[in-house]
Amino acid sequence: MEQVDHLAHERRTAEFDVEAMKVVWAGSRHALEIADRMGRLVASDPQFRKDNRTILERKELFRNTLRKAAHAWKLINELKLTDLWHQNAILFWCPLIFDHLLQGMFVPAIKGQGTDEQQKKWLTLAYKMQIIGCYAQTELGHGSNVQGLETTATFDPKTDEFIIHSPTLTSSKWWPGGLGKISTHAVVYARLITDGQDYGVHGFIVQLRSLHDHLPLPGITIGDIGAKFGNGAYNTMDNGVLRFDHVHIPREHMLMRLSQVTRDGKYVHSDVPRQLVYGTMVFVRQAIVSDASKALSRAVCIAVRYSAVRRQFSAQDGGPEIQVIDYKTQQSRLFPLLASAYAFRFVGEWLKWLYTDVTQKLQAADFATLPEVHACTAGLKSLTTSATADGIEECRKLCGGHGYLCSSGLPELFAVYVPACTYEGDNVVLLLQVARFLIKTVSQLGSGKKPTGTAAYFCKAEHLMQWKCNVRKAEDWLNPSVILEAFEARAVRLAVNCAQNISKASSVEEGFAELSSDLVEAAVAHCELIVVSRFIAKVHQVKGRGVEKQLRALCNIYALSLIHKRLGDFLTTRCLNPEQAALANDQLRALYSQVRPNAVALVDAYNYSDHYLGSTLGRYDGNVYPKLYEEAWKDPLNDSVVPDGYHEYVRPLLKQQVSFSRL
Amino acid sequence: MEQVDHLAHERRTAEFDVEAMKVVWAGSRHALEIADRMGRLVASDPQFRKDNRTILERKELFRNTLRKAAHAWKLINELKLTDLWHQNAILFWCPLIFDHLLQGMFVPAIKGQGTDEQQKKWLTLAYKMQIIGCYAQTELGHGSNVQGLETTATFDPKTDEFIIHSPTLTSSKWWPGGLGKISTHAVVYARLITDGQDYGVHGFIVQLRSLHDHLPLPGITIGDIGAKFGNGAYNTMDNGVLRFDHVHIPREHMLMRLSQVTRDGKYVHSDVPRQLVYGTMVFVRQAIVSDASKALSRAVCIAVRYSAVRRQFSAQDGGPEIQVIDYKTQQSRLFPLLASAYAFRFVGEWLKWLYTDVTQKLQAADFATLPEVHACTAGLKSLTTSATADGIEECRKLCGGHGYLCSSGLPELFAVYVPACTYEGDNVVLLLQVARFLIKTVSQLGSGKKPTGTAAYFCKAEHLMQWKCNVRKAEDWLNPSVILEAFEARAVRLAVNCAQNISKASSVEEGFAELSSDLVEAAVAHCELIVVSRFIAKVHQVKGRGVEKQLRALCNIYALSLIHKRLGDFLTTRCLNPEQAALANDQLRALYSQVRPNAVALVDAYNYSDHYLGSTLGRYDGNVYPKLYEEAWKDPLNDSVVPDGYHEYVRPLLKQQVSFSRL
Ligand SMILES: Cc1cc2nc3c(=O)[nH]c(=O)nc-3n(C[C@H](O)[C@H](O)[C@H](O)COP(=O)(O)OP(=O)(O)OC[C@H]3O[C@@H](n4cnc5c(N)ncnc54)[C@H](O)[C@@H]3O)c2cc1C
Ligand SMILES: Cc1cc2nc3c(=O)[nH]c(=O)nc-3n(C[C@H](O)[C@H](O)[C@H](O)COP(=O)(O)OP(=O)(O)OC[C@H]3O[C@@H](n4cnc5c(N)ncnc54)[C@H](O)[C@@H]3O)c2cc1C
Repeated sequence: MEQVDHLAHERRTAEFDVEAMKVVWAGSRHALEIADRMGRLVASDPQFRKDNRTILERKELFRNTLRKAAHAWKLINELKLTDLWHQNAILFWCPLIFDHLLQGMFVPAIKGQGTDEQQKKWLTLAYKMQIIGCYAQTELGHGSNVQGLETTATFDPKTDEFIIHSPTLTSSKWWPGGLGKISTHAVVYARLITDGQDYGVHGFIVQLRSLHDHLPLPGITIGDIGAKFGNGAYNTMDNGVLRFDHVHIPREHMLMRLSQVTRDGKYVHSDVPRQLVYGTMVFVRQAIVSDASKALSRAVCIAVRYSAVRRQFSAQDGGPEIQVIDYKTQQSRLFPLLASAYAFRFVGEWLKWLYTDVTQKLQAADFATLPEVHACTAGLKSLTTSATADGIEECRKLCGGHGYLCSSGLPELFAVYVPACTYEGDNVVLLLQVARFLIKTVSQLGSGKKPTGTAAYFCKAEHLMQWKCNVRKAEDWLNPSVILEAFEARAVRLAVNCAQNISKASSVEEGFAELSSDLVEAAVAHCELIVVSRFIAKVHQVKGRGVEKQLRALCNIYALSLIHKRLGDFLTTRCLNPEQAALANDQLRALYSQVRPNAVALVDAYNYSDHYLGSTLGRYDGNVYPKLYEEAWKDPLNDSVVPDGYHEYVRPLLKQQVSFSRL
Repeated sequence: MEQVDHLAHERRTAEFDVEAMKVVWAGSRHALEIADRMGRLVASDPQFRKDNRTILERKELFRNTLRKAAHAWKLINELKLTDLWHQNAILFWCPLIFDHLLQGMFVPAIKGQGTDEQQKKWLTLAYKMQIIGCYAQTELGHGSNVQGLETTATFDPKTDEFIIHSPTLTSSKWWPGGLGKISTHAVVYARLITDGQDYGVHGFIVQLRSLHDHLPLPGITIGDIGAKFGNGAYNTMDNGVLRFDHVHIPREHMLMRLSQVTRDGKYVHSDVPRQLVYGTMVFVRQAIVSDASKALSRAVCIAVRYSAVRRQFSAQDGGPEIQVIDYKTQQSRLFPLLASAYAFRFVGEWLKWLYTDVTQKLQAADFATLPEVHACTAGLKSLTTSATADGIEECRKLCGGHGYLCSSGLPELFAVYVPACTYEGDNVVLLLQVARFLIKTVSQLGSGKKPTGTAAYFCKAEHLMQWKCNVRKAEDWLNPSVILEAFEARAVRLAVNCAQNISKASSVEEGFAELSSDLVEAAVAHCELIVVSRFIAKVHQVKGRGVEKQLRALCNIYALSLIHKRLGDFLTTRCLNPEQAALANDQLRALYSQVRPNAVALVDAYNYSDHYLGSTLGRYDGNVYPKLYEEAWKDPLNDSVVPDGYHEYVRPLLKQQVSFSRL
């Protein structure tokens, strides 16, 4: 930290113990300490300098990433950072460059679908970094519809091998991260064909490149799929294309935990229940939700600090200009995002617990809660990633023109984050899955089958259909049970409405298709309820001076700003009347005023280093303008006073003296 | 056009005359013909090849732009394209690279604020390209608040000169396009100080660089402000930083149309009415609205075509996979944007008329309508640019993973478009100005002062406050007057509500500040009404088989999808009841089905060449997959099979055999 602190006055107005809030955000004191130590380590290492602010040509960008990844790997080994805490912390501070080391989804796929023997063999190689693997599922022609993949794996009983083949152009593997240039191996998803029959899509471990000279093996064509959104962002990654021309692999390279092909070409199921693979899915989705809170909080931290530094327009009395964070329009755009970052953090933490819980249940062969867990995690992935992508871009706009500069850190944060709305399940496709679960839940009401977990509120569906909101004054909205019931009533009523409308169609499928937009809204209502309820639950558990009060305010902001945003839902379902909606709005404004003096401290509690933020606007010390100015001169265009191309293209124009009337 | 046409079946289902629609979109047959001819010219010229799909290093990117700009200039001169139609057409097909030639806002500023003599001198130089000018208003510390600019222009009666100076770091000019590397001159906004008194911000023409060797003149520091959002986008432009150290300019370089400083340092107003400058503002804003429809239609064209090509998931009966454009969720995201592109096109066309109308009124010294016109143009700038930026990004998401590739054209389209939400007035700041106008309008109701133009509906405020929507069945929503009155009633009621709530505050200013979020919503309601009413008005005027029917459907989609989006507004103001809202939704779904077979033809009507679209996904012939595949291999990362950096960084890792347990 430098000596000046332009935000000191903001920090003095905080009404809570920031150190205690840091612990709450980090999850525990232990987590905070390690994160803090690792953060400093990374920030002080010149190898990790963020030098890609200016536009690097693709090859240079990629090479740079390899350098950093290798350095990080060396560091982890040298410092013997063998435990999960430390590794995760390092991964956290150097996002993206680590995807190569993590080998994407390669490891989780083998863990989920490989036999014990396969896991032992391949994971050991991967952990030792003797191979680098990627996850090759998506094809040029198929992403969401995994069952439609076209790559074939045909068993050849003569040689006891599978023949992996790309029969069409659209069957080319397309998108896998790490595939294009680096991976030596891949888990390839292909249609298993044996004895002339197609058994659908299965996973196979395929070696792609020689471990000797890194050249693609015979029959294999690999390349990078080209430039992506943003100038750095995912361009540091070699998302790749891959084609097979009758490539032979040993039969044992099929991932055989759930099913096998025998030596004589028989397809047999193992006695391991299929449901076990869901564990991996829950794990991946909780990680995505946790990433959402990281990305959103980072953007919010930048926007809150800069909004406190930035002054624009004088107060009526001609005093100093107003900090833009004092404008109610700024607050109404910014504070709900501040609240969302906390909300997503807590729901992500809860998903970690859910993962442990599910794992135990799966091991006990208890699969009853799986549909509910699936709907919950799919929905939360969709909700948090969409809200985060939109939120980052809103934070960028909240910084005015300067937010458009790469040195603000926000453009790259958006570009690198936004594909989370698409990968691991397109967000709309996921919400439709949630909707299916909800419609099923409604259809089983009264059947004796009791909804559980995040769907348990359907047990009181009858009550919620009748429920009347009893808010009479703005403060009534501070009551968590009022908020909770309002969200429950909305969710139940939207789901029941949809179910009723579907039942009027000629078939359920047709009704579902026709009403799918409404169904998506019902799914969103269900997911927002989950986040609200987890936030409310969390508030009671926290410790530290003033911490609970702040979190309660943020929780209320999260909920009431959602009510405002989705007012159509709440009013059409008659959960609220217009007066109660107006009162919610009044209360929301009051909450903004309450949070205002704490805003900077609330983002300080994330404990993000300036290095991690990578933003001239989000600096801890608020010393924005000199840094913006300094950063500008580093652009290569400033290498020379007269730019390249002037003599060739501009001077002749200036000197030609051709008249030409315009406009 | 190639021989295959994968979209031929889509084109056959169109129920209207596409050629007639092209004329409607272009504005006239003449406009269409010229646009078409110029489009072909540009597309066939190898100099304009879109070769920046891959990531170019900044200097190379910039040099490339200079090359294209010089070539375009040459072309225009060689072909003697002297009339406006042709020039605009060329500008249209080569966006951005032309900003240098257009000299940004330099020309309009001199036109608006220069005396006849000054215009003659400077515009002639600019038109002949003997100088290149930029518009230097924004500073590091001030953007929205132009009155807070800090650069000073102090009159020195001894030398009869102004001394331009940057007294603080935050007074550095920051952002002007073309400033960083190319401009020789600028219109610089600075506080005029004479005789010890500060007369506020005025414009001055300042020479920045030597016309001889392009070096900055003494006392002037200039540079580029560094990388911006996206990899191409505005990085082709040299937005710049500029500092003055007591730079002397002749007194006559002050733009003196409205006020002057005399030889002896007296500040005097001319008899030209200040209001005249508003003409320029209306001109600039109509251009921005027109750009919005271009950018949005471009994105929509790509997303519609690709959604018709892309198939994902089988129908129940196991036939071919479903085109994703047939999913109702896809339609409910895409078709409102298709409708918006048309809506913005027509409101932009109407703004052109408004500009002519205003110009005439100004010349007749009739300033009565100015506040209304100002609110209308400010609001439409805000509404259309925000909706377009969001719409482009939604189109990108609608293309799934492939939309994230630069070869889709969508990432760059977003990155280059999105600053339109910030420049020429931050969108929220503009809406607050609209809100001020509305509150004033409400306060004058009953005073005898009759609201005119786009605010004329306030004349029937009393009726609208009482109005009851009489929709009883879904088809009732097809009645334009029902839609219009619903939008009018919502706008009036929101404005009146705000005014009433403000009147409860201790002062109007305080009330305005406290309720500014609600005010922004009222302003949006006013602007959406304008767009809806212009669309309705347009529908009656069009010619051609089936054209009116299609546009009526799009107009209804635009309005009803807005009702759905802003349902909270319509319900809290009791313009609609929940049943009527549900009927609007039913009608909307029916309209989607009606537009579906026409969707591809409706984007064909934009008459965009594949060159202009610059998208593998949006190709006219729908031949998407081979082109995506082909494009990928052009990335420099594919220059070599084994990537740069492998031997240095990856191979050592693969060979080190250090065990390390993870995850
Ligand atoms: C940065 C990035 C990294 C990736 N990394 C990997 C990786 O490592 N390995 C890998 O295998 N893949 C990877 N992917 C691919 C990713 O998994 C797919 O892009 C994703 O599954 C979405 O599929 P799609 O692109 O085919 O979209 P599509 O399914 O084609 O979606 C296009 C549109 O159709 C709509 N749609 C599709 N189906 C339906 C339906 N049933 N109902 C309604 N609407 C529908 C969608 O909502 C969307 O609007 C990556 C993608 C990206 C962008
Ligand atoms: C690509 C690009 C090109 C540009 N080209 C030029 C050019 O050629 N010449 C030139 O002079 N300038 C140029 N600009 C600068 C541009 O005009 C400013 O960025 C713009 O005016 C916004 O001002 P700001 O950046 O200071 O934002 P700020 O005013 O600092 O806005 C920051 C935040 O404060 C909020 N805010 C500010 N005032 C208020 C208020 N009164 N009430 C409520 N909220 C408020 C805003 O809504 C925003 O959320 C360009 C900018 C960009 C991004």
